[in-house]
Amino acid sequence: MKEKLNIIKVGGGVVENAASLSRILDQFASMPGRKVLVHGGGRLATSVAASLGIESRMVGGRRITDEKMLEVVTMVYGGLVNKRIVAGLQSKGVRAIGLTGADGDIIRSHRRPPKRVMMDDGTEQVVDFGFVGDVDKVDAGLLASLIESGVVPVVAPLTHDGGGRILNTNADTIASSVAQALAEHYDVTLTFCFEKAGVLRDADDDGSVISFIDEELAGKLIADGTIAGGMIPKIENAFDAIHRGVRQVVITHSDNIDGSRGTTIKEK
Amino acid sequence: MKEKLNIIKVGGGVVENAASLSRILDQFASMPGRKVLVHGGGRLATSVAASLGIESRMVGGRRITDEKMLEVVTMVYGGLVNKRIVAGLQSKGVRAIGLTGADGDIIRSHRRPPKRVMMDDGTEQVVDFGFVGDVDKVDAGLLASLIESGVVPVVAPLTHDGGGRILNTNADTIASSVAQALAEHYDVTLTFCFEKAGVLRDADDDGSVISFIDEELAGKLIADGTIAGGMIPKIENAFDAIHRGVRQVVITHSDNIDGSRGTTIKEK
Repeated sequence: MKEKLNIIKVGGGVVENAASLSRILDQFASMPGRKVLVHGGGRLATSVAASLGIESRMVGGRRITDEKMLEVVTMVYGGLVNKRIVAGLQSKGVRAIGLTGADGDIIRSHRRPPKRVMMDDGTEQVVDFGFVGDVDKVDAGLLASLIESGVVPVVAPLTHDGGGRILNTNADTIASSVAQALAEHYDVTLTFCFEKAGVLRDADDDGSVISFIDEELAGKLIADGTIAGGMIPKIENAFDAIHRGVRQVVITHSDNIDGSRGTTIKEK
Repeated sequence: MKEKLNIIKVGGGVVENAASLSRILDQFASMPGRKVLVHGGGRLATSVAASLGIESRMVGGRRITDEKMLEVVTMVYGGLVNKRIVAGLQSKGVRAIGLTGADGDIIRSHRRPPKRVMMDDGTEQVVDFGFVGDVDKVDAGLLASLIESGVVPVVAPLTHDGGGRILNTNADTIASSVAQALAEHYDVTLTFCFEKAGVLRDADDDGSVISFIDEELAGKLIADGTIAGGMIPKIENAFDAIHRGVRQVVITHSDNIDGSRGTTIKEK
């Protein structure tokens, strides 16, 4: 039987606020067993870029990563945010080690080719997102050997192309890719933390969390509009991960990263 | 018999220039056997700080690290410089992993208390260097286990205090402390790269390298003024490392990191 492994993804919004970061690190530190933390860091990069006089360009809600912005996200995600989390976890007795995809060649990606994107006005446009990486492969071997030696990987949303180039990569994608690769070694639960209590029946009522969703129910909830907008790709990604060996995906509030509440997504 | 290990320290001046960085990474990649890279990054932090409108304060040639500057060095040393080196080494087939002292708790330090410092005008002043860490201990265990698994640690000049605080730490000190700790496991050669060919008989003649220095000769060279200024603490640090188990220390130009040229400092 495989050992259990918890992979927790926390977004940039949680990480950039000192109080919410401290709360989440306390919870994460007190989780027993094998674990991995994946973090975002979006808005902090935007504010550092602004201080440096670099404009943040977004298209369809996604960042355009030009040369200058790549330097900023490398500094902010790989340096400031990652090391702040690592040092914070160390102070709580967790032997954390910060990693980007380049470190130990754990996550290889390729630069995303220009893509057709639907604009807000309904027109389509071909967009070059710049130095953004789409994941090709995760080397679970080094991660697993670190985990088995009692180390807790803390993964920043950066990958590399193997040719010396760091690439900016979506943190949800990193979390999902790492979870799928580690599912060969472990019984993996992947938890996405966000600002709501889970998938809600009523978007305005945090008490209306749907505690369990399988593929059949997901289809119904999408059809009747309960699951809509940005939640649809989250749910689709969750089932992708489950089809590739991840035991379950939990979507929950960042105050409940132990998965005791929130929405659990499973095969059946 | 212990396996050989090469620890190479490269300064900020080499690292911030794309051409010299590429040259040194080529050399480092082609070195056979077990190895560790320790890097500085000084001037790049100064220029990023300037772009952010943060003033770099130096006293007696040393940086004052206030809260804002600590954020900058964490970003620049731990993020930009470290990941640029790691991605560069990966592209040359080296399985590099970037680490600060906080990662895996490898280098613990304490914040330096205010110190009396001799000013340029000959007066003394008590200076608080801010968030600067003096090394307390290095955990060689994790480093050795990474090295034995074929990974090459790339260490940034940052440590942590165990209480959640990253501290700015001199890269020479990091290199020397890591070398001493790893000397328990390996037959260590520690190489400091700088802008001269080695310790010179004639400061203006790169052909006048003294190829070998033991403690007796060092004493004479200091007495007769051949070794002077900033080279004196370098030589003293080298003998410190040797007394604590490091086999030899090499001081050489960054174009000769394999130690084939330069000054070798040994017990006898």
